[in-house]
Amino acid sequence: MTNKIRVGVLGFGGLGQAAARLLAQKQEMILVAAADKDGYVYDSNGLNEDVCIKTYYEKGSVGHVEAGGLLTNQSINELISKADVDGYFLALPNLPNNFMADVTRQFINSGWQGVLVDALKRTSAMEQILALKDELQAAGITYMTGCGATPGLLTAAAAIASQSYAEIHSVKITFGVGIANWEAYRATIREDIAHLPGFNVEKARSMTDAEVEAFLDKTNGILTLENMEHADDIMLELAGICRRDQVTVGGVVDTRNAKKPLSTNVEVTGRTFEGKISTHTFTLGDETSMAANVCGPAFGYLKTGVSLQRRGMCGLFTATEVMPQFVR
Amino acid sequence: MTNKIRVGVLGFGGLGQAAARLLAQKQEMILVAAADKDGYVYDSNGLNEDVCIKTYYEKGSVGHVEAGGLLTNQSINELISKADVDGYFLALPNLPNNFMADVTRQFINSGWQGVLVDALKRTSAMEQILALKDELQAAGITYMTGCGATPGLLTAAAAIASQSYAEIHSVKITFGVGIANWEAYRATIREDIAHLPGFNVEKARSMTDAEVEAFLDKTNGILTLENMEHADDIMLELAGICRRDQVTVGGVVDTRNAKKPLSTNVEVTGRTFEGKISTHTFTLGDETSMAANVCGPAFGYLKTGVSLQRRGMCGLFTATEVMPQFVR
Repeated sequence: MTNKIRVGVLGFGGLGQAAARLLAQKQEMILVAAADKDGYVYDSNGLNEDVCIKTYYEKGSVGHVEAGGLLTNQSINELISKADVDGYFLALPNLPNNFMADVTRQFINSGWQGVLVDALKRTSAMEQILALKDELQAAGITYMTGCGATPGLLTAAAAIASQSYAEIHSVKITFGVGIANWEAYRATIREDIAHLPGFNVEKARSMTDAEVEAFLDKTNGILTLENMEHADDIMLELAGICRRDQVTVGGVVDTRNAKKPLSTNVEVTGRTFEGKISTHTFTLGDETSMAANVCGPAFGYLKTGVSLQRRGMCGLFTATEVMPQFVR
Repeated sequence: MTNKIRVGVLGFGGLGQAAARLLAQKQEMILVAAADKDGYVYDSNGLNEDVCIKTYYEKGSVGHVEAGGLLTNQSINELISKADVDGYFLALPNLPNNFMADVTRQFINSGWQGVLVDALKRTSAMEQILALKDELQAAGITYMTGCGATPGLLTAAAAIASQSYAEIHSVKITFGVGIANWEAYRATIREDIAHLPGFNVEKARSMTDAEVEAFLDKTNGILTLENMEHADDIMLELAGICRRDQVTVGGVVDTRNAKKPLSTNVEVTGRTFEGKISTHTFTLGDETSMAANVCGPAFGYLKTGVSLQRRGMCGLFTATEVMPQFVR
């Protein structure tokens, strides 16, 4: 019927909705499934992203979408067993920290075979995914981890940049994120707050919207993050490029202004075989949003994952190991 | 005996010598073979790069190296049949324009199986390699093409950068090269001159050293290159990222000053799924030499090629299709 890659999106917050909008412009992929915690929607002919987003906001779940929607508190499990999907983008909040690994185990246990892509951020969350490597392989699942912006786009750029050097001294990722309204990315902002001194994942997760709002009032909407626990470190270590303690990630998030407070970049410093110390820099254009820099790479890696899957290559891959493919 | 990747270098001009010096610092690779047009040297226990370079300069060919050297005008053919090599870096001058393809045919016809890596530059030279794809596959050779600096490092960075965009408008590569003395890179400089108005590959190739010297005197040692025929274009087109006419390559070469006349960079401009036009920029540190930016990636892709070869994946790959691996 169609040669398009059939895609599902798990999680329908800011990231899942952006993914749906991005996929609507693709010829090579078609969004056929979406799920949130209260329901799912599946249509093998493709979903209308506007209808899904409108329904989610008006009624609280994509399960309310008329054609193909179903309300259930087992949305992921039921969707896996029902839907014919080549690859899922796990656009899930990663709170609690073991949520992504738990969902992955659901896929492993279901007998489903295909591609999974995540854009998770914390090292400790990725370590739980890495521990599932053999099980993923045995299950016939091709899992692409750390495939958003950072980790993902910037980590892959760092892996490319490292090639000029005999030895890497540091990889420094600095991001600027500007969003007009924090409520469009409630899970992401809570994850960011969890990195601040005096907070942790559990504490940030338990904050009410009013408490987040009150906290942001005190900082004038700005979150300044330093020495974040970010899985770029473990990905670059696994690729043999440097030690994880040589990787630092920090940035500034403005939750009240779509304009980035600073340009996102990664600086890779090392020594060449000729003994020179130098720094390569990869800088993202300020007009590119977090959504573009996360979802674009995620689907590029999903396409690569489908190629690997079709050649029988299952198991676990990070964004530094394979090249993402451009999705038309 | 050793788990090191056994490497051969074909061509022993500036690039081949830099490759030998770089490999001397690697634990995962060992240089066992080198050839120039008048001879070759092979030692399964490894070559001493200082001896090879000194001999080449004093006597004109690595074939004069005492242990393992042999003078012959069939150096490549004889080396292929004799040496136990996992992968060759083709550090050959690409003048005439079909030289790299001719050498590749020698490998195909010899029955040798392993990895070949080139750092060639012209689109028309790469098209000849691309035409050999099926033959390479049938011969059991894993060929990595366009794996130097540009094409190579910068093309791969452009492929990563493209992920943020729904549509690419332009990829602009601007390079600055500074070399203290043009005679260290005689073939490379002739290739550069061939890009200038009024020159072509044959004309540049036939210039004597004195003629090149006289020409450089007129330009104060500076070569300014615009709209160069560079295979970055076909590599990005093949990867489905943009049309080849959207890729431009130009730069400035200072043949009398090791300091770069400008910073080498690639700018990737496109439209995001949200309709924003923006530009990602990847900039190389000024202290990194052409040798570091060409040979580093070349061996990173050679390592990837060996992984592919060992999994039975033969044929042709470009630097935009697979991720180079970091070589320790």
